[in-house]
Amino acid sequence: MRIGILTGGGDCPGLNAVIRAVVRAGITEYGDEVVGFRDGWRGVLDGDVVALDVAATRGLLPRGGTVLGTSRTNPYAVEGGPERLLATLERLDIDALVPVGGEDTLGVANRLAAAGVRCVGVPKTIDNDLDATDYTFGFDTAVGVASEAIDRLHTTGDSHHRALVVEVMGRHAGWIALHAGMSGGATVVLVPERPFDVDAVVKHCQHRFDSGFSPIVVVSEGAVPADGHLTTTSGQRDAFGHERLGGIGEALARVIEERTGRESRAVVLGHVQRGGTPTPFDRVLATRFGLAAVRAVHEGASGVMVALRGTDIVQVPLAEAIAQLKLVPLERYAEAEVFFG
Amino acid sequence: MRIGILTGGGDCPGLNAVIRAVVRAGITEYGDEVVGFRDGWRGVLDGDVVALDVAATRGLLPRGGTVLGTSRTNPYAVEGGPERLLATLERLDIDALVPVGGEDTLGVANRLAAAGVRCVGVPKTIDNDLDATDYTFGFDTAVGVASEAIDRLHTTGDSHHRALVVEVMGRHAGWIALHAGMSGGATVVLVPERPFDVDAVVKHCQHRFDSGFSPIVVVSEGAVPADGHLTTTSGQRDAFGHERLGGIGEALARVIEERTGRESRAVVLGHVQRGGTPTPFDRVLATRFGLAAVRAVHEGASGVMVALRGTDIVQVPLAEAIAQLKLVPLERYAEAEVFFG
Amino acid sequence: MRIGILTGGGDCPGLNAVIRAVVRAGITEYGDEVVGFRDGWRGVLDGDVVALDVAATRGLLPRGGTVLGTSRTNPYAVEGGPERLLATLERLDIDALVPVGGEDTLGVANRLAAAGVRCVGVPKTIDNDLDATDYTFGFDTAVGVASEAIDRLHTTGDSHHRALVVEVMGRHAGWIALHAGMSGGATVVLVPERPFDVDAVVKHCQHRFDSGFSPIVVVSEGAVPADGHLTTTSGQRDAFGHERLGGIGEALARVIEERTGRESRAVVLGHVQRGGTPTPFDRVLATRFGLAAVRAVHEGASGVMVALRGTDIVQVPLAEAIAQLKLVPLERYAEAEVFFG
Amino acid sequence: MRIGILTGGGDCPGLNAVIRAVVRAGITEYGDEVVGFRDGWRGVLDGDVVALDVAATRGLLPRGGTVLGTSRTNPYAVEGGPERLLATLERLDIDALVPVGGEDTLGVANRLAAAGVRCVGVPKTIDNDLDATDYTFGFDTAVGVASEAIDRLHTTGDSHHRALVVEVMGRHAGWIALHAGMSGGATVVLVPERPFDVDAVVKHCQHRFDSGFSPIVVVSEGAVPADGHLTTTSGQRDAFGHERLGGIGEALARVIEERTGRESRAVVLGHVQRGGTPTPFDRVLATRFGLAAVRAVHEGASGVMVALRGTDIVQVPLAEAIAQLKLVPLERYAEAEVFFG
Repeated sequence: MRIGILTGGGDCPGLNAVIRAVVRAGITEYGDEVVGFRDGWRGVLDGDVVALDVAATRGLLPRGGTVLGTSRTNPYAVEGGPERLLATLERLDIDALVPVGGEDTLGVANRLAAAGVRCVGVPKTIDNDLDATDYTFGFDTAVGVASEAIDRLHTTGDSHHRALVVEVMGRHAGWIALHAGMSGGATVVLVPERPFDVDAVVKHCQHRFDSGFSPIVVVSEGAVPADGHLTTTSGQRDAFGHERLGGIGEALARVIEERTGRESRAVVLGHVQRGGTPTPFDRVLATRFGLAAVRAVHEGASGVMVALRGTDIVQVPLAEAIAQLKLVPLERYAEAEVFFG
Repeated sequence: MRIGILTGGGDCPGLNAVIRAVVRAGITEYGDEVVGFRDGWRGVLDGDVVALDVAATRGLLPRGGTVLGTSRTNPYAVEGGPERLLATLERLDIDALVPVGGEDTLGVANRLAAAGVRCVGVPKTIDNDLDATDYTFGFDTAVGVASEAIDRLHTTGDSHHRALVVEVMGRHAGWIALHAGMSGGATVVLVPERPFDVDAVVKHCQHRFDSGFSPIVVVSEGAVPADGHLTTTSGQRDAFGHERLGGIGEALARVIEERTGRESRAVVLGHVQRGGTPTPFDRVLATRFGLAAVRAVHEGASGVMVALRGTDIVQVPLAEAIAQLKLVPLERYAEAEVFFG
Repeated sequence: MRIGILTGGGDCPGLNAVIRAVVRAGITEYGDEVVGFRDGWRGVLDGDVVALDVAATRGLLPRGGTVLGTSRTNPYAVEGGPERLLATLERLDIDALVPVGGEDTLGVANRLAAAGVRCVGVPKTIDNDLDATDYTFGFDTAVGVASEAIDRLHTTGDSHHRALVVEVMGRHAGWIALHAGMSGGATVVLVPERPFDVDAVVKHCQHRFDSGFSPIVVVSEGAVPADGHLTTTSGQRDAFGHERLGGIGEALARVIEERTGRESRAVVLGHVQRGGTPTPFDRVLATRFGLAAVRAVHEGASGVMVALRGTDIVQVPLAEAIAQLKLVPLERYAEAEVFFG
Repeated sequence: MRIGILTGGGDCPGLNAVIRAVVRAGITEYGDEVVGFRDGWRGVLDGDVVALDVAATRGLLPRGGTVLGTSRTNPYAVEGGPERLLATLERLDIDALVPVGGEDTLGVANRLAAAGVRCVGVPKTIDNDLDATDYTFGFDTAVGVASEAIDRLHTTGDSHHRALVVEVMGRHAGWIALHAGMSGGATVVLVPERPFDVDAVVKHCQHRFDSGFSPIVVVSEGAVPADGHLTTTSGQRDAFGHERLGGIGEALARVIEERTGRESRAVVLGHVQRGGTPTPFDRVLATRFGLAAVRAVHEGASGVMVALRGTDIVQVPLAEAIAQLKLVPLERYAEAEVFFG
């Protein structure tokens, strides 16, 4: 068979491990040919393709990002997009596609499968917010980066008797904040799923200061206060004389400083969370996903996504997999709350 | 309630995180008192005990090992042991025990529970070979240490055109070898569950050399050749003039060198795999286990062990949990085999 | 003798290693008593002191920050400050002081020494900008954090074909940017010592994009454009509807995006650079500094600072040590420039 | 000019960074052509050569080992070797050589320079035992690996109340043991330069046990007891029924166990110390060495080696550089001794 692989959406540690696994498993187990499309669906639209053999996968397993590049191109939002996809697949004799991506990328795969193209998706979201799989690769690496940062911040916070607010990724789901916060011994963890009470946050910080240590607040970038805004009177000016206003992390640091009278600082971890070598957990998961996708293709599956359930790799219908986000449930957040303060 | 906690058997990253979680959850959620027994069941036998409050748990979450110490003492193998256990628990007004350990430690807990002592176990095995739980804490950390070592060894192997054999922990189960090997892109992975064919190992190594790279063989300390021995003619002498003979790692390195004609070296990772700060995965799992154990105690459970199933923490009967080892199944090993050579 | 130790100014990985070395060397080699003042000179002003013995130093070597706490209190700016310092030292029978700090902390030490108090300083500046010593501890750790972040950012930048600007510490001296940039293979490195030409930065980024890779710009927080400002027309709004304006990193990312037409993002590493466990280089240096300070005290030295010259620890007059900042010299910057683009 | 580069002897983190620096600096600053000889002097003997351009150096900076390969081939020990070297250089129009290596590799370079070939050496020894340079790249990385292992071993040692002996690289010079031991807070450090007293080692370990903690002994592979042997009565048998006898690490562990009555274990770090990504210190040093070598070539230097003195890169005559090993001086060892026990 000729299998095409592509990676779409935000990049993620483990993408290269999936690519390697698809190429090596396809070639070794089934004698497949494998080609890679560049920059997600954009490469399929444009027929921008590269042949992938075993030699091309040397060194990919531990490498972050994706050698195929990625984009957020949605072919169904492009004039004549669907026709161009099919034309490319026809012209290149592609028997099956393995799209690696999140909600958007897999949504396209689902429509293509309905149109008769054999598609087996591999789930990818660094935020771990795809339903139907216990975990996605990249998440463990992101939590690792955030957790190591929190470890570092504890000592500087305590030395200066100041609060530190760590803003991590997570627009809609707070998994990174939850895990990094539990792993790092955060004083408070704030997630998008639970609009937070500023007074309670301040109270936990005060309690932590009172016990002789400095608070670390871990906040998802998408977390919001329950009353819709943070009142704050102070302003900082940047090097150019403009008032500096940050995201939720900086806003929280300001309010904690005002209310506790202690210095508070924000750290926005940003893009370092999604780069770099994947953890072993993510490398193994990505490898198993890639292998399972190739096997699924050869079993004749289509319109499905590989997924982790416990320690097993299973197949789930794409339609079901992308139906809704996987949010942090109340009881998981309640576990973290036991350790607040 | 007054809860006693103890840690038995080999140490493991995450033990301190369990201790912290039991103490903080007990005190914060239920107003419990918590005491720690020193050196596993030895401390219960001798009434060697320390009171644990929140202050005592400061800094424990990221710290490897166990501040309570550990031992392999089996009170049922000691004259009058069971009576001394009960006497200690009575004298110290212990309402419930949370023993953290593997097969042996939890076997004692099971017998104590049968004798009427409220016992909720927490599973611990760095080898990940306890049945009834998807993962145990410490395993991810051990895999991380081994995987990082393999990453390092690839570059030195390739530079010198030599084979490297990495011996990792795992007497009866090959989980660490399997995961570290898949994560590190090993040329071959050998586990105790599958007696190996020396010729096949040599062939894979030769194939790797032929493709211009150097082989890395990852072998569990408990792996054995299918024909019961490795024939080898060469001998090295140590600094004291004695012939040096190592474990399976060194024996394999010798045979690969002889058969391929290329330099081969063994690295025995040893104790570094079980020390040091736990990974975030292990810290979160250990924390959830500790919390779940305290909750189980307060729900009236006994004779059970907390366990991970998918993303949930559940309870399983101790008797069932320790009935058999969790070995690497054939299909998991077959996944790794796809990438050999 | 009775020796007092204190840590002042911004915290730094290695401070605890100095404290441990002073305590252990004093007690073991000379039978000294050692006390620690809390929060820098504030603790001397207030007589806020803690006795330090060998047991108190257990676990300090690998630990970031300072267990003594720190502050920026300048006793010479406080009403009656100098008298209060002397009164505390008299009352507590302190024979000698070992102040650990930067320009400000050591400036106070210099004045105290002139007033007859035996003072041997230990240099501390994470920015490595103290003249008279080749390196200060903490710098290598900060460079390590920044360099690892750059490693991670390369893969995400390349996957998304976007530029990344990494803002690192360094208000007046660009040592961290220089070393992290050279270590991370930065496309451009910008330091406070050299006002930069925005056009040249954009040109280097464009060149890097043209060669098929994504640029990484490493910029000291104190770097400034040669023409005094960055013209930029776009504005982002934060979650609260306010225009978001960052420091030099964000301003640069905006201008690179506008001029190259490629997505650009800023990452501000912030406080993670100064927290966490020190690297071996910093632990060894801090330990040698602490030991040398104790020895200097016993040799009768005062008004001096220990310093690294090549591989030797030497003594230099405090007055000379704090006379001027150590800036990145032209020829060192020129070395980095060879690798730009 | 046409410059040839080669890497000889044991591999070392930072070799690829030197290669990258020579190629990029040569091409960018001087318009040179650069070729690489494979496997050290073997490649010059055989004319085994690869052209190196900027594209060939992509990704080399953070990568361990050497893409050119290495060997211990000594052309002066080969029949007709010197003539073959000269013939290759003539045939390939090589104007200058940059050999990267230790005593042996640079010794050849010295003889070639005397024969009229322009040679500028770059020092390489992971053991840091080359005289005439303050540090060599790779050393800091090796110390980092060893120090992290020691950090991990502390927690497992303390949990089990057992002694751990860590054997590190260093046949003739104890620099790795000295720095890793000081960085890791070792109970004792043993180096080849100082034959050790077994009784003193045991006494320090006993003292450490008595204070409630577990000893870590760091020993260079080349360290020897003062009385020439370690008496030991116990023997372990390996999986094949043979008595297992290790190097100095295992011998020490046995004797500590016998004399203190406490369990003792050896860990031999081995090849992981020389593999993997170089630390920032090593990357910067290697880059500066490579750049300085190219500049030296263009200044007309020959028969010299670049070297680090303080923070400066200087040139020293090859003859002088290889005249003797740089050993750990008494006063540096005495610094470490202050912290023993």
